[in-house]
Amino acid sequence: MHSFEELQEIFNKEIDCYSPAVEPENLQKPVIYTLGMGGKRLRPVLLLMATEAFGGKYQNAMPAAMAVEIFHNSTLIHDDIMDEAELRRNQTTVHQQWDINTAILSGDLMIIKAYEQLGFINSNKITEVLNVFNRITSEVCEGQQYDLDFETNNEVSLSDYKKMIRLKTSVLLAGALQIGAIIGGAHVEQAKKIYAFGENLGLAFQLQDDYLDAFGNTKTFGKKIGGDISANKKTFLLLKALELAKGAYHDELTSLIGNNNISENEKISDVLAIYEKLGIKALAEDEIKNHFNKAIDYLEEVDIDEQQKDYLYDLSKKLMDRQS
Amino acid sequence: MHSFEELQEIFNKEIDCYSPAVEPENLQKPVIYTLGMGGKRLRPVLLLMATEAFGGKYQNAMPAAMAVEIFHNSTLIHDDIMDEAELRRNQTTVHQQWDINTAILSGDLMIIKAYEQLGFINSNKITEVLNVFNRITSEVCEGQQYDLDFETNNEVSLSDYKKMIRLKTSVLLAGALQIGAIIGGAHVEQAKKIYAFGENLGLAFQLQDDYLDAFGNTKTFGKKIGGDISANKKTFLLLKALELAKGAYHDELTSLIGNNNISENEKISDVLAIYEKLGIKALAEDEIKNHFNKAIDYLEEVDIDEQQKDYLYDLSKKLMDRQS
Repeated sequence: MHSFEELQEIFNKEIDCYSPAVEPENLQKPVIYTLGMGGKRLRPVLLLMATEAFGGKYQNAMPAAMAVEIFHNSTLIHDDIMDEAELRRNQTTVHQQWDINTAILSGDLMIIKAYEQLGFINSNKITEVLNVFNRITSEVCEGQQYDLDFETNNEVSLSDYKKMIRLKTSVLLAGALQIGAIIGGAHVEQAKKIYAFGENLGLAFQLQDDYLDAFGNTKTFGKKIGGDISANKKTFLLLKALELAKGAYHDELTSLIGNNNISENEKISDVLAIYEKLGIKALAEDEIKNHFNKAIDYLEEVDIDEQQKDYLYDLSKKLMDRQS
Repeated sequence: MHSFEELQEIFNKEIDCYSPAVEPENLQKPVIYTLGMGGKRLRPVLLLMATEAFGGKYQNAMPAAMAVEIFHNSTLIHDDIMDEAELRRNQTTVHQQWDINTAILSGDLMIIKAYEQLGFINSNKITEVLNVFNRITSEVCEGQQYDLDFETNNEVSLSDYKKMIRLKTSVLLAGALQIGAIIGGAHVEQAKKIYAFGENLGLAFQLQDDYLDAFGNTKTFGKKIGGDISANKKTFLLLKALELAKGAYHDELTSLIGNNNISENEKISDVLAIYEKLGIKALAEDEIKNHFNKAIDYLEEVDIDEQQKDYLYDLSKKLMDRQS
């Protein structure tokens, strides 16, 4: 049984050795480049932890962990095209480093390479794993489409937003845990409980992203506070504020969104002032805590070793205590 | 046992009923739109024929046939973005009808939906089918990358070109037959032979595309003769001509390629004149015949019913006798 950090090290060694075909260079190099950007490897390591939690060997789950991480990275390449992002983890994005066509095609290849890994799974689990993987990867696409749709939709509700972040962020994290549990030999119900743990943890994690952007500590956040506000991003905070604001506040908030005639700093401080009047900070904290507690409740219900629960609990706490 | 036309009708009914999720609309509609564009359904129907040829029930192979067709259509959506194509089968392409982001994302979803179909395959074949499917879909990406690379590469050889069309076109057709054979219960060696039949048929088919563009009958071809020439496309014909041309012909041909100062019609007739002097027409016919005969030789070696061989032979002949 290993801690998150131990499995992270094991997984990093595995992925550092990963190499698809050598040619054509313009197709394969972006794959290596993207996988080499690093990151916490949260999803694959949670998958390996879930396998061990149910008494399986992490080695048997390694292909599935690779599949999840390779798929996740394919979505980063394609999302970066859609968002016209120039940087990812402080490195030039694939479509900037090469071009859009290369980024489309190498992302496609990575989806296929993710499934290639699933082909290495012990055959009596493969159909079950494939079905979960298909469901979650479809949902990630749905989440990304909702996210794109929301940019031009002024009728987005809080529940629409939570559906979107659940699909775009939580299901892959939750599904990774579920797949790990399946490979570890968990019963269907147990695998679903660990999925629910991951789903709520993912929601708490994503809501915290919104929270830190507005209420993070400027010293530890690492980015400028208010990036989402100046980009008119429909976050939990903004949607909650729009839901609560009445009369003058509502008019002020509505007129601030999309207003390009005031300075960025003024806009950020005006919106933050409204957030304060409406008590958005505390409401967001409640919402995050709510999902975190739900996650932990599900974790408590899972029938696994206490040590393994502690590992997952400690990791969850650490994810929630982050400052950036 | 069914003919190509019978299985085509059965398959068309199946795919007409296919529906992924309903929401989000902007993601799911392009999938239905693309699959509804029709086409010969060559790959999935060949897959079903191969299953029947080895004594299997076509019904058991239907998910795999759907997988191949859905994957093929995903590549069309993404290729159309890369080629900036406005029309596909006389209908507006997805990125034109919606936008590039929608086309990227719905293409991604279709790759996943192809694998979803594989999850419906009877479990004792699934690993074998998944492995073949992963190999051929990876190769299709490789072929597309070579095709993109060749646009700006002036050192493309005939063997490079044949490798590219093999990957981009033949392997999916050949792999469809191989998967059909596996599901039908074929032995590994038999499945490989039917793969080789498809590989050579695909090469003959693609080379014929090049041939018809220059030497097709203007009345039956349906498009203007010489489209590849005016687009400076590196086809079998051009690469063969560049390989054979010496002295003045070589200089003339080289200066014609990429020359935008002469009229399109003049360029086409000048290049065709060089093709005639070098005997390119007969050489292309030989090359096509060569691959067609190889295909038929492999078909002869396959240990299946004569009736089924006749169906596959008739279809191959029909594909070769096409005028457009």
